[in-house]
Amino acid sequence: MSLDFGPAVALSCRECGARYDLGPSFACLECFGPLEAAYSFNGVTRKDIESGPANIWRYRSLLPVPVDVATKPNMNPGWTKLVKAGNLGRALGIKSLYVKDDSGNPTHSFKDRVVAIAVEAARNFGFHTLSCSSTGNLAGAVTAAAARAGLDACVFIPAGLEQAKIAMARVFGGKLVAIDGSYDEVNRFCSELIGDPLGDKWGFVNVNLRPYYAEGSKTLAYEIAEQLGWRLPEQIIIPVASGSQLTKIDKGFKELVALGLVEDTPYKIFAAQANGCSPVSTAYKAGLDVVQPVKPDTIAKSLAIGNPADGPYVLDIARRTGGAVEDVTDPEIVAAIKLLASTEGIFAETAGGVTVGVLKKLVETGQLDPEAETVVLNTGDGLKTLDAVADDAEPTAVIRPSLDAFRAAV
Amino acid sequence: MSLDFGPAVALSCRECGARYDLGPSFACLECFGPLEAAYSFNGVTRKDIESGPANIWRYRSLLPVPVDVATKPNMNPGWTKLVKAGNLGRALGIKSLYVKDDSGNPTHSFKDRVVAIAVEAARNFGFHTLSCSSTGNLAGAVTAAAARAGLDACVFIPAGLEQAKIAMARVFGGKLVAIDGSYDEVNRFCSELIGDPLGDKWGFVNVNLRPYYAEGSKTLAYEIAEQLGWRLPEQIIIPVASGSQLTKIDKGFKELVALGLVEDTPYKIFAAQANGCSPVSTAYKAGLDVVQPVKPDTIAKSLAIGNPADGPYVLDIARRTGGAVEDVTDPEIVAAIKLLASTEGIFAETAGGVTVGVLKKLVETGQLDPEAETVVLNTGDGLKTLDAVADDAEPTAVIRPSLDAFRAAV
Repeated sequence: MSLDFGPAVALSCRECGARYDLGPSFACLECFGPLEAAYSFNGVTRKDIESGPANIWRYRSLLPVPVDVATKPNMNPGWTKLVKAGNLGRALGIKSLYVKDDSGNPTHSFKDRVVAIAVEAARNFGFHTLSCSSTGNLAGAVTAAAARAGLDACVFIPAGLEQAKIAMARVFGGKLVAIDGSYDEVNRFCSELIGDPLGDKWGFVNVNLRPYYAEGSKTLAYEIAEQLGWRLPEQIIIPVASGSQLTKIDKGFKELVALGLVEDTPYKIFAAQANGCSPVSTAYKAGLDVVQPVKPDTIAKSLAIGNPADGPYVLDIARRTGGAVEDVTDPEIVAAIKLLASTEGIFAETAGGVTVGVLKKLVETGQLDPEAETVVLNTGDGLKTLDAVADDAEPTAVIRPSLDAFRAAV
Repeated sequence: MSLDFGPAVALSCRECGARYDLGPSFACLECFGPLEAAYSFNGVTRKDIESGPANIWRYRSLLPVPVDVATKPNMNPGWTKLVKAGNLGRALGIKSLYVKDDSGNPTHSFKDRVVAIAVEAARNFGFHTLSCSSTGNLAGAVTAAAARAGLDACVFIPAGLEQAKIAMARVFGGKLVAIDGSYDEVNRFCSELIGDPLGDKWGFVNVNLRPYYAEGSKTLAYEIAEQLGWRLPEQIIIPVASGSQLTKIDKGFKELVALGLVEDTPYKIFAAQANGCSPVSTAYKAGLDVVQPVKPDTIAKSLAIGNPADGPYVLDIARRTGGAVEDVTDPEIVAAIKLLASTEGIFAETAGGVTVGVLKKLVETGQLDPEAETVVLNTGDGLKTLDAVADDAEPTAVIRPSLDAFRAAV
């Protein structure tokens, strides 16, 4: 098998640094630490990037993908809008605020970014089936990408997800299996399946393809920096489910500095969780380095991972950069969804309510500098979590078609 | 009041050619024909366009907007993906097929394009409230754009629309009034309201701002041509509600030819309707020039306009270009949504089911040349019309987290 992962040359353990050949492996044989892609970058310039396509493949020379990746059938995610959020900024008292709005991706969540990289890995390894454990968004992203790429799909979710996420995962034609249990149980089940003959030639995007998959989140860092005019933001608010996205945005910023693509200016990373699933926030506030698993109970189902694999790294990054970890309640999440919608015309899913709600709380508690340039992430779409705003999902008035009736109603 | 509509210099009657100053008017005082923007274009080049932003403002020199339009708060719609649909093409026996996927717009329908132009007109005329009659998608696009632009919003829909469309129109904070009647009654009510003091300083995007608003659909033509490498497609399938979008895509193609931006190659325009609201298709098949209004009854609610204002122009364009007008039943719409999703990973709303269903029917009946390059439009998002696929909105299986249970289930 001849592998082509572009600039990625090996897998390396994030804990002990042990290196391995590129393959469908994800845990260090020495210390059981997570493996991630290691690169040998070759003269990446702003000009090369700027002349690339309006999707994540403009950064292909920074990702574990072959140089011709854009020519293969895939979803071409990314290059979503960085919205100058003047109205929201005024409402919160923040001088310069942007929303990075990943609801503009093909299946309307940031997951399209990571899945697109995983599809390339699946092709490299000759896998015929794309799979995952998912809190909902990933299931849709995987089944859509598999349809486009001509792969089979079989994805796993906890029972009880939002109808929109189930319908979306089903419509693309793959198998959707609900597990009677939490996301963490779904995830454990997938690890078992990888070891079973049933799972042979299956690429679980967030398990055995995770070292490739996770790199897709770096593109959020690249895009934000490029869209700001090739500089790093001073403050950024990122939601935390497994914590992978946050660690990869940090990695992306550091790579841009190391490659001389942006100036080395300080940035603070803030992590946002829902109060009903806030193991990392709890550890942060208690001053701990370890994260105690919890049983999730929140409307922010896409963030409902009670045992976040990258929790300790999130703690480390928030502390090292001078950021913080904060959480908000379900009512605060709903209020934040409505605030973002009514000020900026962006309809976020509950995860976006978490980041905007946490942003508000950080300002109010003095943890965030309102004078510093700030980016807040919206990672998904309100149409997938309609229940959160269901109390307002009726018309203001229902009237006969007459001016008198309208006058009486308003 | 000093008006700035960029290259647009007047309004002209599509029927008799009478010209009027730019203003919030929409019907000819001579013959009651519809008014549309008339331009004086000034040396537009491919290079200028290509150096513009990745949204509709790259075509600002072809639209009724000021040159600094991109600097004002707006939704920046457009530059959506033109997806090379190899899988769908193979399934239908079409050699070269593309899907222009407008579900990638900010509120996930093509309506963001037209509303963005209307917002500029509202600013020009000093209107404080943005309004519309809507079958659903437009209501969300208007309320979102008003929130971003800092305008008030009050929008009108027929009662009984999909929950997702109602929730989306409400979340942005505007007033949403449901009228107990059909879309055509809603539309008539809005015309009354314009004449009433209540509606003073209100911009009804698709009534008194219609000559500006409608021009936004030209950007679909520009984008398709540019994304094909500056050439016109040979065949294009466009959904018909009022018919405005189809006439403006034709206008856009003709402008590109007149300005020398593309070669003057022939193109055929095919119009697609739902069988349950097919007044234009019925007229076409009967060889008539006039369109008899109908009472809509179809799951394709976004196309449910029983008295389409631009129906006669659609007939004319389909016949002149050598295209056709065709319709499909509700079950064919659902089947087409699933076909598009499972082949290309694109989840279309019912209107996209109509165009893909009609495409299939046109091939099967020999009305469309499967050897000619073809573009089919998806104008909206499946998440807004979930009921269409509700029969499949359950997991394939629900199991305990064990390999045995999984083996038994698959």
